[in-house]
Amino acid sequence: RIMRPDDANIAGNVHGGTILKMIEEAGAIISTRHCNSQAGEPCVAALARVERTDFLSPMCIGEVANVSAEITYTSRHSVEVQVNVMSENILTGAKKVTNKATLWYVPLSLKNVNKVLEVPPIQYARKEQEDEGKKRYEEQKLDRLETKQRNGDVILPVINPEPHTVGYSQSSLIHLVGPSDCTLLGFVHGGVTMKLMDEVAGIVAARHCKTNIVTASVDAINFHEKIKKGCVITVSGRMTFTSNKSMEIEVFVDADPFVDEPRERYRAVSAFFTYVSLSKEGKPLPVPQLLTETEDEKRRFEEGKGRYLQTKAKRQAQMQQAAQ
Amino acid sequence: RIMRPDDANIAGNVHGGTILKMIEEAGAIISTRHCNSQAGEPCVAALARVERTDFLSPMCIGEVANVSAEITYTSRHSVEVQVNVMSENILTGAKKVTNKATLWYVPLSLKNVNKVLEVPPIQYARKEQEDEGKKRYEEQKLDRLETKQRNGDVILPVINPEPHTVGYSQSSLIHLVGPSDCTLLGFVHGGVTMKLMDEVAGIVAARHCKTNIVTASVDAINFHEKIKKGCVITVSGRMTFTSNKSMEIEVFVDADPFVDEPRERYRAVSAFFTYVSLSKEGKPLPVPQLLTETEDEKRRFEEGKGRYLQTKAKRQAQMQQAAQ
Amino acid sequence: RIMRPDDANIAGNVHGGTILKMIEEAGAIISTRHCNSQAGEPCVAALARVERTDFLSPMCIGEVANVSAEITYTSRHSVEVQVNVMSENILTGAKKVTNKATLWYVPLSLKNVNKVLEVPPIQYARKEQEDEGKKRYEEQKLDRLETKQRNGDVILPVINPEPHTVGYSQSSLIHLVGPSDCTLLGFVHGGVTMKLMDEVAGIVAARHCKTNIVTASVDAINFHEKIKKGCVITVSGRMTFTSNKSMEIEVFVDADPFVDEPRERYRAVSAFFTYVSLSKEGKPLPVPQLLTETEDEKRRFEEGKGRYLQTKAKRQAQMQQAAQ
Repeated sequence: RIMRPDDANIAGNVHGGTILKMIEEAGAIISTRHCNSQAGEPCVAALARVERTDFLSPMCIGEVANVSAEITYTSRHSVEVQVNVMSENILTGAKKVTNKATLWYVPLSLKNVNKVLEVPPIQYARKEQEDEGKKRYEEQKLDRLETKQRNGDVILPVINPEPHTVGYSQSSLIHLVGPSDCTLLGFVHGGVTMKLMDEVAGIVAARHCKTNIVTASVDAINFHEKIKKGCVITVSGRMTFTSNKSMEIEVFVDADPFVDEPRERYRAVSAFFTYVSLSKEGKPLPVPQLLTETEDEKRRFEEGKGRYLQTKAKRQAQMQQAAQ
Repeated sequence: RIMRPDDANIAGNVHGGTILKMIEEAGAIISTRHCNSQAGEPCVAALARVERTDFLSPMCIGEVANVSAEITYTSRHSVEVQVNVMSENILTGAKKVTNKATLWYVPLSLKNVNKVLEVPPIQYARKEQEDEGKKRYEEQKLDRLETKQRNGDVILPVINPEPHTVGYSQSSLIHLVGPSDCTLLGFVHGGVTMKLMDEVAGIVAARHCKTNIVTASVDAINFHEKIKKGCVITVSGRMTFTSNKSMEIEVFVDADPFVDEPRERYRAVSAFFTYVSLSKEGKPLPVPQLLTETEDEKRRFEEGKGRYLQTKAKRQAQMQQAAQ
Repeated sequence: RIMRPDDANIAGNVHGGTILKMIEEAGAIISTRHCNSQAGEPCVAALARVERTDFLSPMCIGEVANVSAEITYTSRHSVEVQVNVMSENILTGAKKVTNKATLWYVPLSLKNVNKVLEVPPIQYARKEQEDEGKKRYEEQKLDRLETKQRNGDVILPVINPEPHTVGYSQSSLIHLVGPSDCTLLGFVHGGVTMKLMDEVAGIVAARHCKTNIVTASVDAINFHEKIKKGCVITVSGRMTFTSNKSMEIEVFVDADPFVDEPRERYRAVSAFFTYVSLSKEGKPLPVPQLLTETEDEKRRFEEGKGRYLQTKAKRQAQMQQAAQ
């Protein structure tokens, strides 16, 4: 579809969240279709996890987004989908790869939302494809356990913070979950949640560096808990780390099922977003260093640095491999 | 309402699809109101057909759209509505007629969506009005049968197409039908479908000629099949004909009731859109000729040429009549 | 237009904010048209104030909103507009008055947004109409000065609040101002701001009483400061008073022009919203009493009580007058 002014920031760059939402919708459609391809209980595929996603090049207003999706692996209860996004300037014909994302879905029964159904197996062209898929499946399973443990953290408000401190840029928004945010099962689409997360992360980044910012990457996101129609969700973000040219922001989503349920507020999702600051000509700008004050902030900064260096090393290894 | 940036393309011209959506909403309101004006089973008017619609002058961001609707004929089971759209520049006070559209609705029972109810007859000021209405009613009935037969066609993807061929500009989008797309009966509003069709047709046109394009007219559209909430719809478009200054694009809408129904994917709607290419000053530009390769493409080109010449002849006849 | 699921809460009642937004758009159109009706500098009418608005009866999904607007007074630099909203059930034909609102606009030059232009005078049918309009004009002028002084207040966060305290339900959201939120001058539509304010106030009310809530009235709102495209706005709300069956919530809007301007965050708008809690059958429910803790909270509760009793007395006087 064509990118509209509302999909973009004032510099004309399409929000990362808009792209994540398109990716998730494509994944949900292909995996729901696959899981209903054999006779049996009707089901809806719910997003369980998105692997780390890099934004390779910015998309602009007026460009057309081409989204293609393919199922690359199935386990007994889950589907792996690979989604590619290309931006196409229909005036010049120029095409660029914007994103490659990997998503995991599980089929939930339409009649009983707590029942996970079985996934029809796909056929692999080669045996290695199945083996590699299985390896990816096992890896993500491990990683999901880890984030579950990290999830207790809370963002506390700060009064009169100094510029460039964590408290200065931290932000949160509340959103009442409406019918258009939800799947047929009455739960929020994973893509809607990711779009709100990107919105908050973007505001944190812009408050910190006061320039035009764009999403550079999103770390793996696990959707541990479903969010129901009518909930109020609070999306909060704080900066955890800055390198010379990038900012890492941690985002939490808490759901408050406050109308007709006796349940307490709970943590539904959390993730790390990385942003870069761009000049009017689209060149990366230096980012002001994050001032850490408390012990926790210093610890999170070091952890963020660890993730940053790890990603950098990985990318260099890939580039060397590609160059050989 | 005031036209917003999201209603328009990057040149500031409001999308034809936005206008078609407003027209259909006005028609749905007036005909639903009329069909419920006598005691009886409550019903919702569903769009059955839109007659050929010309876009007489472009509308721009910031202008106010004034939409007025009037019932002009009723048969036993259908209502003909005439909708006029005026654009008003509230700064200068200038008003222009943007569209005149004729739509046909049928009342479906709220309790049983497959039951078509009877329409209360309207009073005609003159006997000729009724006779002319009846003639229009018979004509559209015939035409609806014809398109039903044409509807089997499918758009196949082409690898590495040459510029200006049919395969080069053909496009498709998928859309998951959400609650806000639907009427009280849980079926997609005809206006929502037309807006998506215009979006795809616009992308096809822009890909072909790489300039700013606007909708010039839409051929009669028949809504043979309803589309239900939760369906995935695929909207695909391909160019069929070019004249010196216009392009004709054929658009198909296929619905995939992929979750809770055993039904196969089916063709819900199809239509021809005509676009023109505009310079920055709003003057029509020449259009590159469509290169046809296969026998089918050549046949469709000739058919498109037939429609083009017929429309041209009709318009000249009207102008001569008006000049007399 | 037809009310959609997205316009309403899960009980099917249309959000007060959606209605306020429609009212403001109608007012902006009629006053911009009027201010440009004589030759001179082109201008856009900007919302300066909305008088107290009562929501007389709830509107539901599927109903059609009929909005009509009329200019009732003009001063040298301002226009008073009266807007009426009727809800129409097009199935039964039933119509009900939903709102009557009075709005004040000022014409700002399109070329220089800081220049207020002169308003062409309207003709009055009777001399008394002009006199009464002038009285209303003087009254609102006084009231605007008062709120300006109150505007310094800030909502501070509370850690681990007890149920039914002020801190327990207070909420805030952030919103990045996009192109579709703005007028031709690049400033946020007053109606967009009011919709966000109603959203926050509704969440505060629902958090307090955990039931289905609807907007009962909005006190006069003054728009002291414009909000520009690209700003981040923070909308925060806290409960100030509860009677047996109603809740008063104070809402603040702060703008953060954080991208290309050297300006500090500033208070743009503030207002009081009153909500009632409804059972599934639409009957008013008792509201849990607000627990006030600090001196400020107790003072605000007493002030809220004052406004509540004043409104009650006014309404009784009107009813007695109507009964005579």
